Parts: sequence; structure tokens; C-alpha cells
Amino acid sequence: MSTVEFPPPIRPLGELPTIYGVIIYPGFQSLDVFGPLDALNSLSLHYPLQLAVIAETLDPVSTKPPAHLENPSSNFSQSIVPTHTFDTAPAVDVLVVPGGLGNRDPMNVGAAIAYIEKIYPTLQYLITVCTGSGLAAQAGVLDGRRATTNKRAWARTTQLRPQVRWVAHARWVIDGNIWTSSGVSAGIDVIFAFMGEVYGEEVATSISNFLEYERHMDSAWDPFSDLYNL
Amino acid sequence: MSTVEFPPPIRPLGELPTIYGVIIYPGFQSLDVFGPLDALNSLSLHYPLQLAVIAETLDPVSTKPPAHLENPSSNFSQSIVPTHTFDTAPAVDVLVVPGGLGNRDPMNVGAAIAYIEKIYPTLQYLITVCTGSGLAAQAGVLDGRRATTNKRAWARTTQLRPQVRWVAHARWVIDGNIWTSSGVSAGIDVIFAFMGEVYGEEVATSISNFLEYERHMDSAWDPFSDLYNL
Repeated sequence: MSTVEFPPPIRPLGELPTIYGVIIYPGFQSLDVFGPLDALNSLSLHYPLQLAVIAETLDPVSTKPPAHLENPSSNFSQSIVPTHTFDTAPAVDVLVVPGGLGNRDPMNVGAAIAYIEKIYPTLQYLITVCTGSGLAAQAGVLDGRRATTNKRAWARTTQLRPQVRWVAHARWVIDGNIWTSSGVSAGIDVIFAFMGEVYGEEVATSISNFLEYERHMDSAWDPFSDLYNL
Repeated sequence: MSTVEFPPPIRPLGELPTIYGVIIYPGFQSLDVFGPLDALNSLSLHYPLQLAVIAETLDPVSTKPPAHLENPSSNFSQSIVPTHTFDTAPAVDVLVVPGGLGNRDPMNVGAAIAYIEKIYPTLQYLITVCTGSGLAAQAGVLDGRRATTNKRAWARTTQLRPQVRWVAHARWVIDGNIWTSSGVSAGIDVIFAFMGEVYGEEVATSISNFLEYERHMDSAWDPFSDLYNL
């Protein structure tokens, strides 16, 4: 990478976030995590970035859905190794919260919700993907704020916290320092929008070209809210 | 998921591939793996699918790039747990091979290349993402075939095996039972194209809608080959 021209950020390095955290829990959606993280992995080749992969324990965490939602004839999942628990995680500047079928089981996400509630006041930014906004909502940090979520899981997720000003038609929504995005692949668009805002559009474009990804640049682009009649 | 209407496949279940394998090696690109796998995770909710995550050993495998390519001020990676080694993997119907900076170090991928060479004759399909086609090329299975790869890493990858009929302008290329795709995010488009071909377009559309992903449907769509002057 060192031989490639890379644009400078729009702010001094000292003003940029450096410590990222991502929450994982049993039954998380893998692309919710690895869409944003792959873009950040690439960014970390150019800027000094640290990542904490945070879970309830240090045991590997599987994408396997809860038993009542999985196909009993399938055995198709991936397991990720946490680097920290909710108790041992360092102070993070940016927290990424994924969705996934696993969060339909409250037992899977109680500790994650408590962690979000506890550390939100110290975050520079909170970014949620898909039904990850349901966890942030249950942590109370979205109350009175505009936010979005997965469009197919719309009714299920929004009823978790009516105090949130849920926005049905949006690829992503920014309110204060909280960036919420729509379902699964929307996490890729929101991380590039975030990168554009914080590091500069030239940086975001450089990374999206590196990933050969055609970004949706309009936060109001959302054919899926129409598809699901929202 | 059980309450959701899902289209039937275009072939009898008994004719569909059921055992998928994915190779991982140190310094693999995470989205190369988790783009395709997340779509397949979702498919496995509807059809009986098995996944083997295959590596040289059963130790967790990190996305951390080789030392000479990483940023020494960053510590930003994820580790995945293999389910099988190259020696213990079951017979797989479909093999997915990712790219990543790690494959620039021959020590990291020699065993993977040998494995591809060994099992290719028994595969129904081989799918590569990004510079994963460089591994398939070195295994000799692309000789005389049309194939594509990451566009920024074009020169470096294609010179690995001039016997391949490299196609510069393509999001993905199909030649026989081998599907090769362009850089990183192209893995999402190739898996949906593959799903459309094997399971039917209705199935592919249903899953891409579930992931709120807008597919590139044209295998010749490729602004990145222009961007990198190929």
C-alpha cells in the first residue's frame, strides 16, 4: 500500500477517531459487521486505527441464528473471535452495532444493550447497521432522535421503542453523533458516508474504489421501503 | 423466516449443491469472504446447506495483512475460526476462494493453492473473489480459460499465470464451472449471479432484497477497469 498515493484527511490526525469497537453477539448478521469493517480495515492501512471486537465473553461468536429461526437441515455459519468483553473493552471513539436474527432473542443481547447505554456518553460516534438500531433504541440513546433500521424487520424493530422518531424511507439517517442505517448492505453505504464526513470525500472515494464498490451517495435512496410497503 | 413466502428453486433439491467450502488464509480480505457468505447464510435459512471454513490449521485466521504491507501504527483486524483443515475438509460441491493482501506472501497460500489443485476435479463449481483468482490460476485450473480479478492488483495478479485468458473489463466472468469476479465487493454480485443461475433468479432476488442489496446484473459492468486504465 505504501507505494499508492492516498489523499490526506480533511482534519488533523489528532482530531480523528482512532479506536473503533464493534459489538458481536450470537446470531449477528455477518455482512452487517464485515461491510463496515472491511472498509475500515482498508482505512487502517493509511491511518493509525485500533479495533476492539467486543462480546459478552471471549469465546468465538457464531452467526448461527437462534434455533427457532434456523433451518434444522442446514449447518452454515461463521465464528468470530472477540478481542474484549463488555467489561474489558477499552474506551472506544466509534462503536459499530450490527443487526441479525440473533437479536430477536433478548437473552443474546441484554449485555450488549447495557453496554451501549453505559458507554454512549463517552463515544464520539455511534453507527448502527440493520436491526442494530433496535439495540441502540432499547439502550435509550435514540429517544427523540431520527433513526432508521432494516425495512423488512420494520414493524418488529420500531415497536421496540416508540420514543424514537423512526424514518421509514432512508438508506441511512444522521442525528447528532448517531448514524443509523437500513438493512444489511446499507452498512457499506453508511460507513463510506461516515468516512466522507469525518476523513473527507476524497478518502472515502479512494477506499470505495479500492473495494470496487459503487456507493449509494444519497441517504434518501431506499427502494426497499417501497418494496416492503412502508 | 418460516412465515415468509420464499420462491422454490428452478431445479429439484437433489440436483442442487449442498456443501459449500470457503478457504481462508492469513491476510484474507474480509468482505471477499463475508459478501458471498452472508448471501449464502441467508439462503441456508431456506435450503439445506452445509459450510466448511477451511484453512491450513484449526487456529483462528486473521485478516491482518503481512507485516510489510500493514500500517505499523494500526491494530485493526478480525479473526475467523476454521471448521476444517485442508486435510480434514469434507468433499465440497462449491468452493469459494477470497483474495487479500495476504496472498502476496507465497508462504501464506501455498497450501491453499495445492488444495485447489487437488479438489478442483471433484467440485461442481469454483467461485473466486478479487485476487482469489490468482490462487486458482496458480493451481493451474484457469489455464486456457477466461477469468477476471481485482482491477487495482491487475498487473501483479495476471502475471502470476499468463496461460489464463484474463478479461480486464468484467464484474465477473463465467467459464465452464468457474466463476471469477473482480475486486472485493464484486463477490456480492457474483454470488447473486451464481444463485440466479443455479437456484433461479426469483431466489436470488428474494435474498438480495433481504440484504437490501442493489445488484449489478450486467457481468460487463466495470467502471474500475477504466479507473485503473486497463
